[in-house]
Amino acid sequence: MTTLAVDIGGTKIAAAVCDENDAIIQRWRVPTPMDADAINDNIAKVYREAVAAGHKIEAIGISAAGNVGADRRTLTFAANIPAWVNYDLSEHVGKLIDHEVPVVVENDANCAGWGEYVHGAGQGSSNMVALTVGTGLGGAIVINGQLFRGSFGMAAEIGHLPMVPDGDHCGCGLRGCAERYTSGTSLENFAKSAVRRRPQDAKRLLELCGGDINKLEGPMVSQAAQEGDVLGLYAFGKIGEWLGRTMAATAAVLDPDLFVIGGGVVAVGDILLEPARYNYERFLEGSAYRGHAKIVAATAGQDAGLIGAANLALR
Amino acid sequence: MTTLAVDIGGTKIAAAVCDENDAIIQRWRVPTPMDADAINDNIAKVYREAVAAGHKIEAIGISAAGNVGADRRTLTFAANIPAWVNYDLSEHVGKLIDHEVPVVVENDANCAGWGEYVHGAGQGSSNMVALTVGTGLGGAIVINGQLFRGSFGMAAEIGHLPMVPDGDHCGCGLRGCAERYTSGTSLENFAKSAVRRRPQDAKRLLELCGGDINKLEGPMVSQAAQEGDVLGLYAFGKIGEWLGRTMAATAAVLDPDLFVIGGGVVAVGDILLEPARYNYERFLEGSAYRGHAKIVAATAGQDAGLIGAANLALR
Amino acid sequence: MTTLAVDIGGTKIAAAVCDENDAIIQRWRVPTPMDADAINDNIAKVYREAVAAGHKIEAIGISAAGNVGADRRTLTFAANIPAWVNYDLSEHVGKLIDHEVPVVVENDANCAGWGEYVHGAGQGSSNMVALTVGTGLGGAIVINGQLFRGSFGMAAEIGHLPMVPDGDHCGCGLRGCAERYTSGTSLENFAKSAVRRRPQDAKRLLELCGGDINKLEGPMVSQAAQEGDVLGLYAFGKIGEWLGRTMAATAAVLDPDLFVIGGGVVAVGDILLEPARYNYERFLEGSAYRGHAKIVAATAGQDAGLIGAANLALR
Amino acid sequence: MTTLAVDIGGTKIAAAVCDENDAIIQRWRVPTPMDADAINDNIAKVYREAVAAGHKIEAIGISAAGNVGADRRTLTFAANIPAWVNYDLSEHVGKLIDHEVPVVVENDANCAGWGEYVHGAGQGSSNMVALTVGTGLGGAIVINGQLFRGSFGMAAEIGHLPMVPDGDHCGCGLRGCAERYTSGTSLENFAKSAVRRRPQDAKRLLELCGGDINKLEGPMVSQAAQEGDVLGLYAFGKIGEWLGRTMAATAAVLDPDLFVIGGGVVAVGDILLEPARYNYERFLEGSAYRGHAKIVAATAGQDAGLIGAANLALR
Repeated sequence: MTTLAVDIGGTKIAAAVCDENDAIIQRWRVPTPMDADAINDNIAKVYREAVAAGHKIEAIGISAAGNVGADRRTLTFAANIPAWVNYDLSEHVGKLIDHEVPVVVENDANCAGWGEYVHGAGQGSSNMVALTVGTGLGGAIVINGQLFRGSFGMAAEIGHLPMVPDGDHCGCGLRGCAERYTSGTSLENFAKSAVRRRPQDAKRLLELCGGDINKLEGPMVSQAAQEGDVLGLYAFGKIGEWLGRTMAATAAVLDPDLFVIGGGVVAVGDILLEPARYNYERFLEGSAYRGHAKIVAATAGQDAGLIGAANLALR
Repeated sequence: MTTLAVDIGGTKIAAAVCDENDAIIQRWRVPTPMDADAINDNIAKVYREAVAAGHKIEAIGISAAGNVGADRRTLTFAANIPAWVNYDLSEHVGKLIDHEVPVVVENDANCAGWGEYVHGAGQGSSNMVALTVGTGLGGAIVINGQLFRGSFGMAAEIGHLPMVPDGDHCGCGLRGCAERYTSGTSLENFAKSAVRRRPQDAKRLLELCGGDINKLEGPMVSQAAQEGDVLGLYAFGKIGEWLGRTMAATAAVLDPDLFVIGGGVVAVGDILLEPARYNYERFLEGSAYRGHAKIVAATAGQDAGLIGAANLALR
Repeated sequence: MTTLAVDIGGTKIAAAVCDENDAIIQRWRVPTPMDADAINDNIAKVYREAVAAGHKIEAIGISAAGNVGADRRTLTFAANIPAWVNYDLSEHVGKLIDHEVPVVVENDANCAGWGEYVHGAGQGSSNMVALTVGTGLGGAIVINGQLFRGSFGMAAEIGHLPMVPDGDHCGCGLRGCAERYTSGTSLENFAKSAVRRRPQDAKRLLELCGGDINKLEGPMVSQAAQEGDVLGLYAFGKIGEWLGRTMAATAAVLDPDLFVIGGGVVAVGDILLEPARYNYERFLEGSAYRGHAKIVAATAGQDAGLIGAANLALR
Repeated sequence: MTTLAVDIGGTKIAAAVCDENDAIIQRWRVPTPMDADAINDNIAKVYREAVAAGHKIEAIGISAAGNVGADRRTLTFAANIPAWVNYDLSEHVGKLIDHEVPVVVENDANCAGWGEYVHGAGQGSSNMVALTVGTGLGGAIVINGQLFRGSFGMAAEIGHLPMVPDGDHCGCGLRGCAERYTSGTSLENFAKSAVRRRPQDAKRLLELCGGDINKLEGPMVSQAAQEGDVLGLYAFGKIGEWLGRTMAATAAVLDPDLFVIGGGVVAVGDILLEPARYNYERFLEGSAYRGHAKIVAATAGQDAGLIGAANLALR
């Protein structure tokens, strides 16, 4: 059973042929066009190349950054691709490949979380929540060995849990969503604010961004924090605090046994996870009288989304 | 298959023998003692009376106002009964009845919600959330025909979803929990605040509480609202707003197809449900691009908890 | 110039004859009746006794726990005395003493703050804010040597600065007022919450309240904190944090050179003042680029209100 | 008494020679350079031209968008001009004009508010707060005929009153500042969010911004609201609500008799002022038992800042 996994990210499309154990056999990577048709063409082209290379593809699994309907075919909305409003991506791609194989579409955070469940830190959990801390905050829920998609494909949208009424305004049009407080974007925001308020402590962060605070980016904050810089550690302390609060809110609904935290910023390890764990216990209902979920870093790596998409394509 | 259902409430213990369709055959009602041993004795006594009356009891199902562990036996914590800290209620009651039948313990909101699922407004839903608006706010989740208890028995604690950081302080020791904004208690609080701020509009509410605002109770607010009183409607508008916000937060995790709203205050119907529905849509992520859960009043009545406990006892 | 100062508190009426330097010559103390007429009678009786004792009283200065109009005569509202709604206290008392001397009424926090300005820690400031942390949180503002009353007598109501939208509900009918986070009442609330959430750390506080958390009172929290108890220190850390935030908010309007903190809880000194100072700087606009107000404990003692009322009576 | 008033805005420097009644005799307008030296040169050049034109200048009054110290000379910080950190603008300009006349520097919102007090809607008030709703939210306080600057020049920073803990992040490095909820910027943000959430109602706003929501600007929202567009009215309703809340918070400290609302967005009149007045009363402490400040639109027009700077230069 060989599948073609496709991960449509904000800047690049990654694709891979995976074997029956989800191991990657061959890879492709192309820039993401802004145009929906061009995206479809790229996917079809990769499929043809894979077939031409001799792979017996049985299904295509697409990981997409957007809301995917319960049908596992339709993008209902995506912040970055205006055409993706109630857009049947499965049909559009299928048409280009003469419907030779089924095309299954899943939300990118669902794919990454599922990847952790089948091949990473989530193995063996019976009630897992995976959170991907990237530009935003994505979520995936796995209950009793099944990805939980909700009634309209909108379950596990934990990045949009309302954490602060009238809080930071979010690209979704609401305010105070969790991802405004826990994400790479919010890491930058916390660090920028700290530089503005504590210029006397800002030497290292200003060095890293060439003196222009508007050019400060997440990886610079990670580097500073790992060097022990006080403002870098502060910024991770804040997103960690809100990660803990967000997990506590999630636990009020789901009471999971495991949280798996993925995404680029998790490379700093306990710099993020310790404040997250501390605040999870601090804001968890009945903390002193109950079992607690484990909170661990993801282990499936950057291919988690591809692996998850590959595995889900045949389910 | 006959079961004995027991509902241990804050003021009374209700019990009932139920037939294989969960229909109630015989009832008992006694005041709730504050002492854990006396509660156990009462339950054993009712059981003996039921047996003496000729009922072939196969199991006892107990609905308890407290946190129940995943074992469906142990009260881990209960605000009203200090002895119920990691207290194996199943064992304590079982001992008194010579372990003749199994004793299954469930959280009261889970029982009421399950009652709605099997015999009330929740029938047919594949992803249901039931909310009981009483002194506090209880929740129950039913996914694919199963009550979802979570990993430590603490799922569906929706009354303790954190809605307002640094908000109203809650009996659980946290702040800003949903039940501080949606519950009979909060209905009274909103009404009292309105009386203090708008004395010129407070004539009817003051009449109903005999002129002493500290004696204002939920049913008075319901009566005033049903008469069209502006402050009574305001108070329901506020708990309805927060009910809508709480459901929107829940939907960010679970994306259900149905919310069933129960508890005494729901007797006012659309006075509560309309602001709840309006604010659900207002605060739901991607509201314009997705399917929406139905929001309906509970229909199984005051016996929902007993019926649910009876039904769960044999599962 | 001899004046009679009267301080109408929640439980007792204190009175004193003061000389031209506001030094106390003779004292009275009686329980506070709940009835407005009885309060007036008590004041008149003390006045007659003072005159009979040979004091040449030139004015009566009354410190009252309530909102006082700009006329310095009228109680517009008082939470504890229902009759004090647009109640001309000056006229009612004046009538009983045949209008022999003028009767000046001031808000109690204004009197205490003014007492600090003329004889305590506020001396020499040209832009002072005094805060009295008692059951609630009272404020007084002194600008250029004048008590600042505002246009309707409602200036310096800093205890009702809105700190948290939808926050803790306040007796005034609003939510999230500063005094719900900084006051003796909130000290108790923070401590009670801590006991509920961290029972393993609660040994000392539970001892002090005899095992019944509902009987925990402010002075017990002060004692525990002074002994180094972790939950006692936590509770002071929280009201200190919010005191700092409240002062930072005040500074956005007034930019004072001095905050004087009075009231019973200030006896713990830096246990309260250090978190207050830290959070003042943390939440102050432009903290790194401006002069900062000093934050000091009150020094005029428990008579600050009487002294202030005496001094204001002749202004 | 002739003065030269200079208003250094974000995009242009306006200058005017004013007579002894603050009437404008002659005007200049040049683009604002980003460089502090070039700004100084421009001011000196205008001064020379004014003198050359025969005006007997007695003082220069400069209105600057930044924090001005209590010395009325020094910019302590300015978001837009990096060099203005503890920068003695008075000395730098004075040197270029051989110290022929005194150079007085004031915060721009203070100048505009003072202009309203001496020649606009604030005349006759004894306790006025002026708010300028522009890109941000500026404030000015006039007590007993004097501009109130505070102890370090930072009074009336009402745009940075903390309204929402953990709220929208502000350029000052704090969160939840009033100007994040009441300003031209926040008007755009509320409108953009509304378009995202209610695309079915967004036709007119999308037309006005050419279909690209990222290009939506304040004046388009004003136009739509004045045409009766529901989302335009919604956006003004929100900034009006927060303007009301901000004034209520200000009143807890200052209890003014008058609020004067200026800035470009006030052109919509009651579309902004009615929700502001409604929410002022809603969130004002003791609303039912006190006098209320009037809330009116500014009348001194776009020259309020110049007029104010001219008048203040000789005080």
